[in-house]
Amino acid sequence: MTESLPLPVAPASIEAMSLTATIEAIRSGRLSPAEHVATVLDRLAADPFNTVITLDAERAAATAATRTAEAARGQWRGPLHGIAVGVKDLIDVAGLPTRCGSNVRRDVAPATLDAPVVARLRAAGAVVVAKLHTQEFAHGPTGDVAATGPARNPHDPGRITGGSSSGSAAAVAAGHLPLALGTDTGCSVRTPAALCGVVGLKPAYGALPTDGVFPLAESLDHVGALAADVAGTALAWAVLGGRDPDPAEPVPGLRVGVLVDEYWQPADPAIAPWVDAAVRALVAAGARVVPVRTPMIEELVAAYPLIVGNEAYATHSRALAERPDDFQPLIRERLLGFADRPAREYIEAQRTRRRLVPAFRAAVADVDVLVLATTRLRATPIGAASVEVDGRAVDVRPALLALNSPFNLTGWPAVSVPAPAPGLPIGVQIVGIRRDEHGVLDVAAALERAWR
Amino acid sequence: MTESLPLPVAPASIEAMSLTATIEAIRSGRLSPAEHVATVLDRLAADPFNTVITLDAERAAATAATRTAEAARGQWRGPLHGIAVGVKDLIDVAGLPTRCGSNVRRDVAPATLDAPVVARLRAAGAVVVAKLHTQEFAHGPTGDVAATGPARNPHDPGRITGGSSSGSAAAVAAGHLPLALGTDTGCSVRTPAALCGVVGLKPAYGALPTDGVFPLAESLDHVGALAADVAGTALAWAVLGGRDPDPAEPVPGLRVGVLVDEYWQPADPAIAPWVDAAVRALVAAGARVVPVRTPMIEELVAAYPLIVGNEAYATHSRALAERPDDFQPLIRERLLGFADRPAREYIEAQRTRRRLVPAFRAAVADVDVLVLATTRLRATPIGAASVEVDGRAVDVRPALLALNSPFNLTGWPAVSVPAPAPGLPIGVQIVGIRRDEHGVLDVAAALERAWR
Repeated sequence: MTESLPLPVAPASIEAMSLTATIEAIRSGRLSPAEHVATVLDRLAADPFNTVITLDAERAAATAATRTAEAARGQWRGPLHGIAVGVKDLIDVAGLPTRCGSNVRRDVAPATLDAPVVARLRAAGAVVVAKLHTQEFAHGPTGDVAATGPARNPHDPGRITGGSSSGSAAAVAAGHLPLALGTDTGCSVRTPAALCGVVGLKPAYGALPTDGVFPLAESLDHVGALAADVAGTALAWAVLGGRDPDPAEPVPGLRVGVLVDEYWQPADPAIAPWVDAAVRALVAAGARVVPVRTPMIEELVAAYPLIVGNEAYATHSRALAERPDDFQPLIRERLLGFADRPAREYIEAQRTRRRLVPAFRAAVADVDVLVLATTRLRATPIGAASVEVDGRAVDVRPALLALNSPFNLTGWPAVSVPAPAPGLPIGVQIVGIRRDEHGVLDVAAALERAWR
Repeated sequence: MTESLPLPVAPASIEAMSLTATIEAIRSGRLSPAEHVATVLDRLAADPFNTVITLDAERAAATAATRTAEAARGQWRGPLHGIAVGVKDLIDVAGLPTRCGSNVRRDVAPATLDAPVVARLRAAGAVVVAKLHTQEFAHGPTGDVAATGPARNPHDPGRITGGSSSGSAAAVAAGHLPLALGTDTGCSVRTPAALCGVVGLKPAYGALPTDGVFPLAESLDHVGALAADVAGTALAWAVLGGRDPDPAEPVPGLRVGVLVDEYWQPADPAIAPWVDAAVRALVAAGARVVPVRTPMIEELVAAYPLIVGNEAYATHSRALAERPDDFQPLIRERLLGFADRPAREYIEAQRTRRRLVPAFRAAVADVDVLVLATTRLRATPIGAASVEVDGRAVDVRPALLALNSPFNLTGWPAVSVPAPAPGLPIGVQIVGIRRDEHGVLDVAAALERAWR
């Protein structure tokens, strides 16, 4: 791992784009929706990190003007009144094309309807400002393979953002936006959140509708949210999930599962100390540690690529035959790796999943949450398929997926929260076993407080 | 369709084996569990219809003696105290092999645990007496392809029972048994119930656990129950489903959907008049008729063989390679038809199902139940792949599946109830849209009353 370059992001900008601070400024009248959205549009128009696919400047400015007038009359649509949000370009926004980062969809007609998750944000007053960068068809954890070129990490533009919600994570990390929607099939909210130093929530499977979201693999796809801090993410979840949080569950007495098998250990030696620090911080706040062994994990995760690969190939087989050159070569190659694979293999992978998820659940029966790293590596150089760590080659893709995809297979809620690490960001993941989305966000908030 | 032969079953024997009448006789002390089980075992031992795979005579007699002693002391285990039940040989009974009608499982070790559905019957006091005939691995709707030869229809031993719960339907129809468990992946409780003239219930998908049941196709498999009349089936459902019936829902005001598209029409001209008669009987009792069109049905049911075929092949691929000669040739051929089929085809079939079931649901939004035929044909000659009806060749398999498998794809509860037709039995099917299992049984009971 080479040392990180000097940070081009001024820490002030991401803090200024805190969702809760922006809401407070708008509610108090110190900032109008029009001013806020104008700032966001200016920043996105001048964005050096390639986070934007489609900027919806005119409509966003007009909507922001309406929200401003409403606010002046004391009419508040909801908790996100006048707040600029970005939407991963895999998710439909009425009137804008859903290009999925691909030339295959270069000339696609604009979506006619908002995806329900977008409609929920709008109903709460949000102003959609842009469709954001995604790895082509969300197929991969790096964020550097797309029709519009690689997204760039605001902490080091030569490095990946992680993916596939690359633009969502980077735009929030750069302080362009207070809130963005992403999707997560194997890591795609949590990994870019970790690599860019923001908070990313993957709710439980099925907790949010995926209608109007271009599928990667329907039996693993989740919609999620990214914000600069836990409070913003929790507010977004309250709006998206459609219910107020229960009273925060206390950390004293919390049973924190720590995954002790080799499988769960990070490769980059800078990461493990922050997982340990997170566990210590929770213990200091009254939690207790439960070591957890997961002998089924290797067999379980072996089902993941078979499920994703076969479902994605089924989705793209026609386009692969009709317009192969419109795919990015790397994505085409990965998709075609699943051409003519037998149904038996896919059905057996789903059976393995159904058989081993209960075994995994039983292994964690005595804990409330798991605390682990989000990724095995920090942000790697753009285009690098493998990096050297302590003289050993580490493949980038599995290193970004391995600690995340198990929780797409299980469907458990999980959040990545940034550690206060110097240099490149490091994410710590909280997975809910006997805690729901609000519950894991409560634990993440406790960590954030301990680390301030 | 040739005319039916004279009936070898005395109507008295099936009425004597009514579940509710047997329970009443036992409760009143007129019949002891030991006497009842002895009668059942004698009948099964002398069965001319090939319904039995494994007779558990010694253990059943011993258990019945215990139940008799308990009853004498006033100890009643539950509503099925001392009642003999048969179990399709696809469902595990502790201590007996689950042979699935196949030589592939000729030497399989006895099951160590009762399947939960069997355990629920036993907990209610039932005495398992036998493992019953099944089409090999439940793969087919006829009941005439199995390691132990064809099951024979008690109404005409040269004709099929229907399948795959062939032994369950025929043993009840012959008056051997008051209650049997079956399974239904595409028609396998309802079709043999219809062809043998008994009542067969397929509950909603997932309503009963399929643990300990050898799978045919896990995304369509259901466990169900067969009895001589509706009251017996309803009692079995109350025990299996684990909850008492709500007060019977009245027929006045019931919205009865009648499927008017050609797809749903029977081939045998003897059948449609009984569907009409059923609808008229319900209308006479206060129901009203709602014609229903289902333009999606052909595309939806086209997904069925792809789902069953691919899932079944995945289950059997190893045995097909290792011991092909132990399969019945017809079943081997059908299974091998899905060797090396692409995963894409299976995934697309599941997507079609997820897309069109909501369309089907919308088409029936204004009805409480559907009333239709259970099968397009009455019982056909054993071994016949097609029969002639009005000078036209009709393939037997699709004719037995077509009116049933849509409700395995949708997962809606459905019951087949015999019409009082002369000659070979005819089943009328009640499918629950806004009615659950008890609700469809209530409608079946109203029909049964009208027809007595």
